[in-house]
Amino acid sequence: MKCKTELESFLAEVNKLTSIIYAKSILSWDAETGAPRSGAVARAESIGYLSSLYHDIITNEELNKNLYILEKNSDVLSDKHNKMVKSFIKEYKKLNTIPKDEMVAYNKLISHAKHSWEEAREKSDFSIFSKDLKKIITTLRKFAKYRDENNHPYNVFLDDYEEGMTIDKLEVFFEELKERIVPLLKKIIDSGVKIGNSFLTESYDVETQKQFGEVLLKDLGFDLDKGILSESTHPFTNGIDVDDVRLTSRYDENNFFTGILSVAHEGGHALYEQNIDRDLIGSTLDNGTSLGIHESQSRIYENNFCKSLAFTKFLLPKLKEIYPKQLDGVGVEEFYRAINSVQPSFIRVDADELTYPLHIMVRYEIEKALIEGEIEVDNLPEIWNKKMEEYLGIVPENDSIGVLQDVHWSFGLFGYFPTYALGSAYAAQIFNSLTKDMDINTALENGDMVKPLKWLTEKVHKFGSLLTPDEISLNATGELLNADYFCDYLEDKFLKIYNLK
Amino acid sequence: MKCKTELESFLAEVNKLTSIIYAKSILSWDAETGAPRSGAVARAESIGYLSSLYHDIITNEELNKNLYILEKNSDVLSDKHNKMVKSFIKEYKKLNTIPKDEMVAYNKLISHAKHSWEEAREKSDFSIFSKDLKKIITTLRKFAKYRDENNHPYNVFLDDYEEGMTIDKLEVFFEELKERIVPLLKKIIDSGVKIGNSFLTESYDVETQKQFGEVLLKDLGFDLDKGILSESTHPFTNGIDVDDVRLTSRYDENNFFTGILSVAHEGGHALYEQNIDRDLIGSTLDNGTSLGIHESQSRIYENNFCKSLAFTKFLLPKLKEIYPKQLDGVGVEEFYRAINSVQPSFIRVDADELTYPLHIMVRYEIEKALIEGEIEVDNLPEIWNKKMEEYLGIVPENDSIGVLQDVHWSFGLFGYFPTYALGSAYAAQIFNSLTKDMDINTALENGDMVKPLKWLTEKVHKFGSLLTPDEISLNATGELLNADYFCDYLEDKFLKIYNLK
Repeated sequence: MKCKTELESFLAEVNKLTSIIYAKSILSWDAETGAPRSGAVARAESIGYLSSLYHDIITNEELNKNLYILEKNSDVLSDKHNKMVKSFIKEYKKLNTIPKDEMVAYNKLISHAKHSWEEAREKSDFSIFSKDLKKIITTLRKFAKYRDENNHPYNVFLDDYEEGMTIDKLEVFFEELKERIVPLLKKIIDSGVKIGNSFLTESYDVETQKQFGEVLLKDLGFDLDKGILSESTHPFTNGIDVDDVRLTSRYDENNFFTGILSVAHEGGHALYEQNIDRDLIGSTLDNGTSLGIHESQSRIYENNFCKSLAFTKFLLPKLKEIYPKQLDGVGVEEFYRAINSVQPSFIRVDADELTYPLHIMVRYEIEKALIEGEIEVDNLPEIWNKKMEEYLGIVPENDSIGVLQDVHWSFGLFGYFPTYALGSAYAAQIFNSLTKDMDINTALENGDMVKPLKWLTEKVHKFGSLLTPDEISLNATGELLNADYFCDYLEDKFLKIYNLK
Repeated sequence: MKCKTELESFLAEVNKLTSIIYAKSILSWDAETGAPRSGAVARAESIGYLSSLYHDIITNEELNKNLYILEKNSDVLSDKHNKMVKSFIKEYKKLNTIPKDEMVAYNKLISHAKHSWEEAREKSDFSIFSKDLKKIITTLRKFAKYRDENNHPYNVFLDDYEEGMTIDKLEVFFEELKERIVPLLKKIIDSGVKIGNSFLTESYDVETQKQFGEVLLKDLGFDLDKGILSESTHPFTNGIDVDDVRLTSRYDENNFFTGILSVAHEGGHALYEQNIDRDLIGSTLDNGTSLGIHESQSRIYENNFCKSLAFTKFLLPKLKEIYPKQLDGVGVEEFYRAINSVQPSFIRVDADELTYPLHIMVRYEIEKALIEGEIEVDNLPEIWNKKMEEYLGIVPENDSIGVLQDVHWSFGLFGYFPTYALGSAYAAQIFNSLTKDMDINTALENGDMVKPLKWLTEKVHKFGSLLTPDEISLNATGELLNADYFCDYLEDKFLKIYNLK
């Protein structure tokens, strides 16, 4: 075979990289799920070293020569190898175009910003964080230029999290959300309809919640022999390996349904990671293809499946078995409406299904304008509050629960927030497509989750990062991202719940 | 300063090594405490890669040149740096003298032997394992020659686990044990005295045991803000970092005191790791100096402290608070005698304090003779059983609970077993020295464990690997290893317990 040597040499580097990524994943899992806080210094040293090894492998000139030879001979390579080559070249360009000293300075800045953001949030004083944020934005604009001077800087970052995503596409997307969801929310608020849900905040034994969480996860199709469900303050999923997928949930005695939703949400991420084709193991393509597509899988399980009327019919009798007192006399319809009640609130991560994308819209508009230099950092609190009022009809009383609530910007994560809304939209679009292929309501009512999982595996999961988000969308739904499905779904669901229209 | 460049360059390599060791420690901790079995392949890949990085750093010729320059200029270096240089040179010699292809073949052999040993033990058929064991011994003899052809091969391996230990010293040591402990045991058995301990095997709630384990560990002086107590089938301690020391225990509903002893034993190891001088962090000297000295700290906490009459006075009332039913009417003396009752048994890890060193003696005599070529592998079951009869007065009915019970030889660990007995002997010697400096009985009765911990920290812990085992012994007890203390202690304790002499 042509370029046999180059391919072998490339695959040897891939193996090293896989080993480094594995070790970093375990260190990070350990840090989130039990490591004593005091061990942070040693861990940071080790992660720093592993990161430098990663950097050295990616930017190695010998590897790079091989990559360009392989790229030119793409016709003799398999799809998998071509995709691997492509992703390595992308990573090389990302890491190699920024001067090392500027990267070191930036990492220091980020490290400082983490603390200034924490302090600012604690004291609810934006000015403590604003200086670092300004520097971050200036640096990111410069980095974007280095990486691709002909592209819009925000597009450069978007592409890191969602390959192929651009401002142009997002403008269309959010425009439709603004036009349809903002009035929908207003209509619901103006209706004055109040949904009773006080039974959700009674006392629910936490140990029982944990046991139920594990049963639910298994019911959804997760293989507990090849993964772990653990606990952490901020739930997350870590697809360490197809054979070792780990997720966490959180449990609140007085808000038990958040624990269930958390298992369903992370369960969706985890099922994606667990059902990637085994042929992709060790290729660096054995993870979800993008943040948006990943979020679509968590959202479809959390919202489209678990918060549906059909699944409530399956779930409620089971919940009544373990919590007979708390749920005494609660009907299916009543429970369904309670878990779907809409209430504009300040904190994104606690938002309901309908208001959630509006929280994202606020962040998207602000971060895009920041990168474009159209607004000033100093004016952020004011701008934030104005947008909150415009889209959600509420104004936070302080910046802690306003502009300072999210960690992302302090990490330099710009272009990341939109993927949360894209996830919900993709979920609705994929769900729509799935309903054409099966009687999903009957499946959900019976808790027969094998069928939808099989469908999602064929249409989405198994490809890992072999396909782009656009290709996944086409494969699963026959078309590219289309916000109609999401808006239709929300209108249909919430107008019914609120007996409107 | 002279050799400034060489020192800086050396310390940079030390940093890398520390980061690799940290990552390997976390991966291993993760594997033992919760990782799904299915993830073993990816983990093995990653550990293999980290090990190869470790190997490459140690055997790097550039580093080696620096090391020899630094060694020649030891007069300008600090004690710490001199010791670091020395330990790196030792490790270099160990890794560099064995031809790479032979090492690769050996690693394959070990990997195979693990399985053949498991199968042999399961089927209680020594012949399944004997072929691999023969190969391991042949290879080890060859490796010992490569590493130091003028030394006794068994001494080469001893030195890996216990710096400075030799067959000559061990012969004296075990000779005294044989002369004094074997007759002591015989005397106890022949006396016909039976100590009642049936209350120890009643049902004790496991969750309560776990909570008590944590309280006990804290009482012993362990800082739970800088470590974790977890659970595993085979308890162990991992001193990942002075600020991150992790240990596990096991709990048995019908044998609750094993859980307490396990916490005390691993707690002793963990206290050692937690009280190493902070100046040694990141130097690769921030772990216990040898297996024997390490074991002395686990044994002093397990046996000399927690199984003493004085500590029983502190412990029993606390146990009665949580297990009032099970311990109703049990007196201090009765409890003390029960937890110290002597019963020859087949399994080393379950042995009591008195018979434990005899289990080690069996293994020591056999493995030394194997390395010397004085006995044949095929005759091991027979030899094993004969020695068990001679020293413990019992003969296992099959090889599963006889010669096949321990994993060590299948891993190629020869020269490792003696350190277990050395640990108990060092513990008695150190305990004897400690009693001269403080009223330990009063401290134990009051559960005032700060004092002995402070003493041990000053005499043993704080030095990490800066001092050799001999230096630690001299520092803590004023003399080198002397089996008298151990034998005196055992005679004194057990003759009293059995009302003999």
